[in-house]
Amino acid sequence: MTELLPVAVLGARGRMGAEAVRAVEAAEDLELVAALGSSDPLDSLVSAGARVVVDLTVPDATVGNVSFAVEHGMHAVVGTTGWTADRLARLETLLAGTPATGVLIAPNFALGSVLATAFAAAAARYFDSVEIVELHHPDKVDAPSGTAVRTAQLVAAARSAAGVPDAPDATRDQLDGARGARVDGVPVHSVRLRGLTAHQEVLLGSAGEQLTIRHDSFDRASFMPGVLLGIRSVARHPGLTVGLDGYLNLQTGGTGS
Amino acid sequence: MTELLPVAVLGARGRMGAEAVRAVEAAEDLELVAALGSSDPLDSLVSAGARVVVDLTVPDATVGNVSFAVEHGMHAVVGTTGWTADRLARLETLLAGTPATGVLIAPNFALGSVLATAFAAAAARYFDSVEIVELHHPDKVDAPSGTAVRTAQLVAAARSAAGVPDAPDATRDQLDGARGARVDGVPVHSVRLRGLTAHQEVLLGSAGEQLTIRHDSFDRASFMPGVLLGIRSVARHPGLTVGLDGYLNLQTGGTGS
Amino acid sequence: MTELLPVAVLGARGRMGAEAVRAVEAAEDLELVAALGSSDPLDSLVSAGARVVVDLTVPDATVGNVSFAVEHGMHAVVGTTGWTADRLARLETLLAGTPATGVLIAPNFALGSVLATAFAAAAARYFDSVEIVELHHPDKVDAPSGTAVRTAQLVAAARSAAGVPDAPDATRDQLDGARGARVDGVPVHSVRLRGLTAHQEVLLGSAGEQLTIRHDSFDRASFMPGVLLGIRSVARHPGLTVGLDGYLNLQTGGTGS
Amino acid sequence: MTELLPVAVLGARGRMGAEAVRAVEAAEDLELVAALGSSDPLDSLVSAGARVVVDLTVPDATVGNVSFAVEHGMHAVVGTTGWTADRLARLETLLAGTPATGVLIAPNFALGSVLATAFAAAAARYFDSVEIVELHHPDKVDAPSGTAVRTAQLVAAARSAAGVPDAPDATRDQLDGARGARVDGVPVHSVRLRGLTAHQEVLLGSAGEQLTIRHDSFDRASFMPGVLLGIRSVARHPGLTVGLDGYLNLQTGGTGS
Repeated sequence: MTELLPVAVLGARGRMGAEAVRAVEAAEDLELVAALGSSDPLDSLVSAGARVVVDLTVPDATVGNVSFAVEHGMHAVVGTTGWTADRLARLETLLAGTPATGVLIAPNFALGSVLATAFAAAAARYFDSVEIVELHHPDKVDAPSGTAVRTAQLVAAARSAAGVPDAPDATRDQLDGARGARVDGVPVHSVRLRGLTAHQEVLLGSAGEQLTIRHDSFDRASFMPGVLLGIRSVARHPGLTVGLDGYLNLQTGGTGS
Repeated sequence: MTELLPVAVLGARGRMGAEAVRAVEAAEDLELVAALGSSDPLDSLVSAGARVVVDLTVPDATVGNVSFAVEHGMHAVVGTTGWTADRLARLETLLAGTPATGVLIAPNFALGSVLATAFAAAAARYFDSVEIVELHHPDKVDAPSGTAVRTAQLVAAARSAAGVPDAPDATRDQLDGARGARVDGVPVHSVRLRGLTAHQEVLLGSAGEQLTIRHDSFDRASFMPGVLLGIRSVARHPGLTVGLDGYLNLQTGGTGS
Repeated sequence: MTELLPVAVLGARGRMGAEAVRAVEAAEDLELVAALGSSDPLDSLVSAGARVVVDLTVPDATVGNVSFAVEHGMHAVVGTTGWTADRLARLETLLAGTPATGVLIAPNFALGSVLATAFAAAAARYFDSVEIVELHHPDKVDAPSGTAVRTAQLVAAARSAAGVPDAPDATRDQLDGARGARVDGVPVHSVRLRGLTAHQEVLLGSAGEQLTIRHDSFDRASFMPGVLLGIRSVARHPGLTVGLDGYLNLQTGGTGS
Repeated sequence: MTELLPVAVLGARGRMGAEAVRAVEAAEDLELVAALGSSDPLDSLVSAGARVVVDLTVPDATVGNVSFAVEHGMHAVVGTTGWTADRLARLETLLAGTPATGVLIAPNFALGSVLATAFAAAAARYFDSVEIVELHHPDKVDAPSGTAVRTAQLVAAARSAAGVPDAPDATRDQLDGARGARVDGVPVHSVRLRGLTAHQEVLLGSAGEQLTIRHDSFDRASFMPGVLLGIRSVARHPGLTVGLDGYLNLQTGGTGS
């Protein structure tokens, strides 16, 4: 008989945390051994026998939580923001002392979104032109979205590394804003529309062809497959991994196409 | 036996004109009786017996051509630009003297594009939000496209006439240009991508739903069905009509949906 | 001061009915004067002074409810199914006796969906080819969707009325099912995908161009604007109207495009 | 000064061959040293000093051409069809004798299409549902397209290898063909529309999210960047490579997303 993997969820009373609790309970290969709120002591993780700790708390708490987990030989899957370069560096130092322990810090657990960004970055060097259109509900306060900015940065870096010249653009006569915002030289257009949730299209074009990579996020449920993938995979990835795509197998092995 | 409709094409050596010559010749119900270049005398239209004159010339020539046609009782289908309000007013005066004669002046003969704009204008009052994304080849010098500006103006006018409030938008923190250009308050985003020709999406959203009206123009061939529709319909529309949609039957009669 | 329109909702304990109750309460120009469940007596509609009755009940109850409303001079807005041709005929007879009373029977209250179907039907005669792709969640038991079947029927009828020949199709060698189902000759393709709700694309093509009309329904909230439009408009449409599009103003008046 | 790479094109009078001749001549790092038609002797390849031979001929000629190239130590980039398993096996035997020589046999040189297929195959294991919609001009005789069949096979193989269960589908009541053709269990829908060229969408869905990978091929020009990539890369890939994706760097290295 297969042994269940004992999992603890921190931040279990938050919206993401509550979803994670349900997802772990529903998974046949996982066992929820602890579900802690902000005032619960971390010691109970040890007595509960957790092997993987899922941190969905707040920036002020996440560093202490992850350090505790690592010091006690538990793996950690982290969706909390606030991991500055400095905090990451200290975590790597800590991890150097326990070479078998893995930590995943993922700003985005939506598998489709992570894949879309990775594919856009991989494809960007092969096309003359690339632009991004992101579409969200009208209550969003920032434009472009963080995901679009990050995608544009990765696309720009990939093109720069491959020596791709700037995209052609003969625009001489324009209304202010028509050609979008520029993020590292990549045009990004932000649509705000009642009825939408969170959507993004990366458009890549060359003579005679276009490649479009679109991701639609309809609700929070889309994060749970990524959280479960992180829980199941973290033990096989010792050390620090930033970004869920580090756990994805994007190589197709040769399709013969 | 059905009589063929005798048609003359002016500007027959230009790109659009040459296509129109081919389209008229290929149509079973039409007969090409004249195909004139810029230096050919207009008198030959009379001797050729033209009933409909298609003007695909240049702004300097079109007024004289259309006046000649109207004065000789011929209908005119005009794709040439340059028809200012003043020129249109004088043409209407001239037409008042020959009540059976029709003139169509159409800035756009692509049926799909004309329909897309008309549908967007008709739908605009029923949604909270509306934005336009237009996409063209990167050799285009202006942004947004003329079609997008016109669509935005019609959308804005329809919403204003129906008393629709401004679209919701909580954006507080943005990169310059992210939210597009504003045309009469409607956000318009211009994408330039190698491989594309001319494309436009109107996005309309309300709580729980989205309506998208997209037109793709892949090549000049798309103008000919509209030119033929104009030729066949102009005799049934005496007086001046501006815009091919004046000839389209957009009413569905009640679908029972 | 503007007088509020007194509205009653029948079927107020059902999912649609409960949404309608909330929508009427939230509308500044409407007053909810009754919200009845299946066992509540209809007499209370009279004492409550309802001017418009919204019926969101079940096929067995709707005929009696609407008859009661019409007999008492109230307008009715009906979202319940089960209105056979025979039932509709009897309702029209009843309405003939009270010429000022209006009844709207609408199989679909999603404005965007109703508009999309109406636009597709209006555009269909102007294109060589037309196909429908509908996309739904994988728990749906029928394929194609009722909306897609209805859209295809209207598209086919419009093409037939205009004498449009069959769409070109050189397919000789095909896998079973590849070219979709045929509804009155129109190919309809049904996609079932986890994560989706209810979506439909009508694709229209001619030489050099494509027109795409897409509707996305993300949740039930999308029905309420249509219900409110029906409530506010029914008094101005005496007699029987089938289909919400009978209340929509789809004519654009001439866009000059 | 950089040395130019000497390239020969076989099948130079065919449509693809003529495009390749122009593309090689236009490339600053390549030198066209031979452009042979079907009756020209292969010996001239040797005297011309070709380092890379591009074969765009016919199934009957390609085996002899490639063998000649390999036997004379030239690399080969092959777009001709007709390479059966048996022919490929014999080519590998031949290549074993000249370990520095590379041969690329690519059924598809459109970079965007190759990338789209590779991305679809890589993503397929991470989603509950996957379906393919391919759209072509109405003169196409087969349905689904070869590219769609191949994409479906690769998607199915990737899901099978990862142990992904069948996509959910509650359809009980359907019109014949509505749910498309099945290729290794993957539903494939074929749209035929006047105005289109060659287009494909792979739709992937899980709870709360959708990933769409779309490729549009507008004209033959889209093949040339892939041909040039093959020419420039073949010397760095000794032995036999089937499929242009074997030359693409699809790994993103870790985006940190």
